[in-house]
Amino acid sequence: MSPKITTELLKQLRQVMKSPRYVQEPVQAYIVPSGDAHQSEYIAPCDCRRAFISGFDGSAGTAIVTEQHAAMWTDGRYFLQAANQMDNNWTLMKMGLKDTPTQEDWLVSVLPEGSKVGVDPFIIPADQWKRMSKVLRSAGHDLVPVKENLIDTIWTDCPQRPCKPLITLDLSYTGVSWRDKIVALRSKMAERKVLWFVVTALDEVAWLFNLRGSDVEYNPVFFAYAVIGMNTIRLFIDGDRMMDPAVREHLQLDSILEPEFKIQVMPYGSILTELQAVCAGLSPKEKVWLSDKASYALTEAIPKAYRYLTPYTPICIAKAVKNTSETEGMRRAHVKDAVALCELFNWLEKEVPKGTVTEIIAADKAEEFRSQQKDFVELSFATISSTGPNGAIIHYKPVPETNRTLSVNEIYLLDSGAQYKDGTTDVTRTMHFGTPSAYEKECFTYVLKGHIAVSAAIFPNGTKGHLLDSFARSALWDCGLDYLHGTGHGVGSFLNVHEGPCGISYKTFADEPLEAGMIVSDEPGYYEDGSFGIRIENVVLVIPAETKYNFKNRGSLTFEPLTLVPIQTKMIDVSLLTQKECNWVNDYHQKCREVIGAELERQGRLEALRWLIRETEPLIRVQ
Amino acid sequence: MSPKITTELLKQLRQVMKSPRYVQEPVQAYIVPSGDAHQSEYIAPCDCRRAFISGFDGSAGTAIVTEQHAAMWTDGRYFLQAANQMDNNWTLMKMGLKDTPTQEDWLVSVLPEGSKVGVDPFIIPADQWKRMSKVLRSAGHDLVPVKENLIDTIWTDCPQRPCKPLITLDLSYTGVSWRDKIVALRSKMAERKVLWFVVTALDEVAWLFNLRGSDVEYNPVFFAYAVIGMNTIRLFIDGDRMMDPAVREHLQLDSILEPEFKIQVMPYGSILTELQAVCAGLSPKEKVWLSDKASYALTEAIPKAYRYLTPYTPICIAKAVKNTSETEGMRRAHVKDAVALCELFNWLEKEVPKGTVTEIIAADKAEEFRSQQKDFVELSFATISSTGPNGAIIHYKPVPETNRTLSVNEIYLLDSGAQYKDGTTDVTRTMHFGTPSAYEKECFTYVLKGHIAVSAAIFPNGTKGHLLDSFARSALWDCGLDYLHGTGHGVGSFLNVHEGPCGISYKTFADEPLEAGMIVSDEPGYYEDGSFGIRIENVVLVIPAETKYNFKNRGSLTFEPLTLVPIQTKMIDVSLLTQKECNWVNDYHQKCREVIGAELERQGRLEALRWLIRETEPLIRVQ
Repeated sequence: MSPKITTELLKQLRQVMKSPRYVQEPVQAYIVPSGDAHQSEYIAPCDCRRAFISGFDGSAGTAIVTEQHAAMWTDGRYFLQAANQMDNNWTLMKMGLKDTPTQEDWLVSVLPEGSKVGVDPFIIPADQWKRMSKVLRSAGHDLVPVKENLIDTIWTDCPQRPCKPLITLDLSYTGVSWRDKIVALRSKMAERKVLWFVVTALDEVAWLFNLRGSDVEYNPVFFAYAVIGMNTIRLFIDGDRMMDPAVREHLQLDSILEPEFKIQVMPYGSILTELQAVCAGLSPKEKVWLSDKASYALTEAIPKAYRYLTPYTPICIAKAVKNTSETEGMRRAHVKDAVALCELFNWLEKEVPKGTVTEIIAADKAEEFRSQQKDFVELSFATISSTGPNGAIIHYKPVPETNRTLSVNEIYLLDSGAQYKDGTTDVTRTMHFGTPSAYEKECFTYVLKGHIAVSAAIFPNGTKGHLLDSFARSALWDCGLDYLHGTGHGVGSFLNVHEGPCGISYKTFADEPLEAGMIVSDEPGYYEDGSFGIRIENVVLVIPAETKYNFKNRGSLTFEPLTLVPIQTKMIDVSLLTQKECNWVNDYHQKCREVIGAELERQGRLEALRWLIRETEPLIRVQ
Repeated sequence: MSPKITTELLKQLRQVMKSPRYVQEPVQAYIVPSGDAHQSEYIAPCDCRRAFISGFDGSAGTAIVTEQHAAMWTDGRYFLQAANQMDNNWTLMKMGLKDTPTQEDWLVSVLPEGSKVGVDPFIIPADQWKRMSKVLRSAGHDLVPVKENLIDTIWTDCPQRPCKPLITLDLSYTGVSWRDKIVALRSKMAERKVLWFVVTALDEVAWLFNLRGSDVEYNPVFFAYAVIGMNTIRLFIDGDRMMDPAVREHLQLDSILEPEFKIQVMPYGSILTELQAVCAGLSPKEKVWLSDKASYALTEAIPKAYRYLTPYTPICIAKAVKNTSETEGMRRAHVKDAVALCELFNWLEKEVPKGTVTEIIAADKAEEFRSQQKDFVELSFATISSTGPNGAIIHYKPVPETNRTLSVNEIYLLDSGAQYKDGTTDVTRTMHFGTPSAYEKECFTYVLKGHIAVSAAIFPNGTKGHLLDSFARSALWDCGLDYLHGTGHGVGSFLNVHEGPCGISYKTFADEPLEAGMIVSDEPGYYEDGSFGIRIENVVLVIPAETKYNFKNRGSLTFEPLTLVPIQTKMIDVSLLTQKECNWVNDYHQKCREVIGAELERQGRLEALRWLIRETEPLIRVQ
């Protein structure tokens, strides 16, 4: 893939950075974060400003452009991809490496004295603003909000903000009505003595109202904000979507309701002025609750004395703990997803030796099989279909320029998932369609040992996910190996494939303790630049664990795999497994056979069933 | 042990909290932290104000007294001890449990509107002040500095601040001269562009000048501050200690020196005014470096614009990485310490069955054997000599009221250590002098598995200690067990037995990455209230590890045990060990036999040698 040529664009950006038409005073640096006004991870095309200016289109990254420099911060998943997509105007800042400066330290080191650093206040989260602003100020610079987005001023063919129809979800999917969710939220608000709650994250709005959309690819969300008072509900949303009778019925817009459940629908763009109006009516001690990751613009709209900021909102936490309807839906979705993957892998096994299957064809085939399943909506993220050296690009997405043909000589890594109306999937399998080398098997087996160590871990109630991260690495560490990404992320229920507030990572962020009903991924890996990538990922449900003892009556937790797709035994060096690990694989495969086998049979997919039976033969460990 | 009766004292304290003689305005709450003006963990008797007011004399705890309440915050190590030592006037706040409020949240919940909360500004660390002050202010209260310590005003028989002679350490112990340490410090200061550095922690002053003292029991430190400029050195210290010719010679006080190495000696009490004077002479951009844990009083003395605060000082980090002279000294100290413990355990094995050995006698005997070793200075902490239920009190110290007789029916836990002129030791062994029950052996073996998992762990360079904590707990977690303390702490080199900036704990504090030369403890445990306590502790040195591969050329680390004292094989249920764990124990015991055996022989301690041989017989694991 050839890098985007950005010389002209950077020149234009540097011009508008000085233009009195857009900035009160010239800014010597301009920050282009990767998010949108909702701090979403996946964003609509109109919000892909960082990709537009730099060419780098991975899911995480921040660009900063100064008079002299253009620099891009991204994490280990994207080092290779970013290096490939950006031209020589850009410097790659590898986050997580010891010598990489933070954005603010770098700014301090390159800016002339008394500089102004501009940023769109709707795009930068308030916590990030605060941190940067403090460092810049202490070095004599100023972080300033630039009302008009400077990228938009030079982006002549910027696409329109999407405004697609909504999907309503009934109780059989959600388990709880939106009215009951509002009641629960208000009770949390009362507990904390706050009068208003501002919902800014798109998945939180969707979850709260039991609605889904398709404004953002892969994430079934729609552009909206909500402001919940103790007696009022305001939903900020554009388009004619509120004209849909199903939506009107679902939200009871035309019913005679108790006033506290009456939803006032307002234009999306009026959030700032409405929030300012709400705040104008407040008296001291009347607080407004907002995520500390909400945009600087909305946060600043609330006078400091009235602000109640938390790292995670009560919606985020409630959303993470799935109820029975949601977990049952997730189970169903994962069964369907496994059926599709059994079909795919059976097909690949036959087709790959012919030399006609490329990464893109394989990805399309995976989507085709998934789309045959009931309640399929769309993919949950861009399929990572990668073979050989492409597998080492952790968040690779095949494009014509990089598209490689699968062969019997290279490892194939497929990380894919879908949105079904009953749940979200995310699964990675690493396969070899010929004969893997001893070294490839060795590395695969270390990754598998790490996967099992997390999946089978038993830990006390109240444990935070980051305490489990080293379990996934221990077998790799023993041999001097490691991987440069976290081990797991929260997964939504027909919602974002990445969600907070829990996760499994060596990065100690403010993760909330794991509790029964939470759903996370377990996905250790190993990547050798230029050669291959290995990752084994299941989505797992946190469940209570039975233990011999029960210290301080705290109770214990463990994981139940929701993903039920065979792990290729051909890639396993059984001599490196303990008996316990060997039993885990065999038990897991037995369950795949039973649950997915029954569904394959029901769907009459007998060839895939035979493949499943073959792939789930028990391992035998010779002592 | 009976609790201290505090009714009268609390009455007096509440009076002075309102007395215009001591406070400008009445304070509705008064905080009594456990530290001294240097934020030391171990403190001199004159600084034991929290113990004086409450009766609770554990090493960690904060008391808060209001008009109506008296509450004590302490952590899991001290729940039982605090409950036993405090009378009914006090409420115990168990830190680390889910429902326990923070000090500031509790204050907000009990105080009348617009309250003032007082604290001695020299005793409270600045970071704590900031956090508390923010929460209190946002709830309409005020945190106020009370210049005169209110406990001191009611403490009629308060002991004097100690002022003991100093010990000078030559290059054979320290490896680096104090002049070279000053040079290294100034180069760190230049790197960060700071002009002044304020040394506030007692062990940092001691380390910097290669001096030791005995002002605080167990910690070979002395009351002093230092202020280092690029061309000046000011040492704030009291008494006639600077008259000692050895000290004058060591610090070259009477030599003709380059001015930048000339030490100005000033009175201890003049630090605040001198620091203010230094700051008065500063111009903008001239920074003063201070730990963010330094006292609020000293931090406030530096105008905000001039402050450069870091969680760890460059001295703290340099001190943690031991050089060859220091590690060799630590090795020698641990050999001597092991000799003493072999003598002790051999003696206990003979004496315990007679029913004449109490916890205090055993502790005294341990000290006696240690004191026979070369360069013994004092103990490194109060010996935890505990049998049966006393073992479950994690930081127990036997006193006549609790003193229990060792027997062949109960587990005995000894956590002890010493200061030798060449190093500091800290070792815990858990023994049974009769026949342990299957359950006791089971628990012991889980703890041992955790100990080995950390000790044998291989991990990449740059790994922080908290990522290793779960390894120590995994075997316990599998059975629903756990322990409520961290797994390891940094250990000084003839300095404090607890030191930063590294450690191994589930609490994610800002620990610095482990690097070769750092020394930490590895001490998982298991405690059953009312029954027994188990802990297995070695001091271990971080060393480079040889691995099969070397991902990204990062290199790997592991631990080498410095402690070489047999782990009682009688307590091990070998069937619960893997072959690898079994080999670890056997290799460890082989090394004890070789290294300590040779020293026992050299010292002519042949009976203890026979005990060592018996106790280090290899385990045999039947498959």
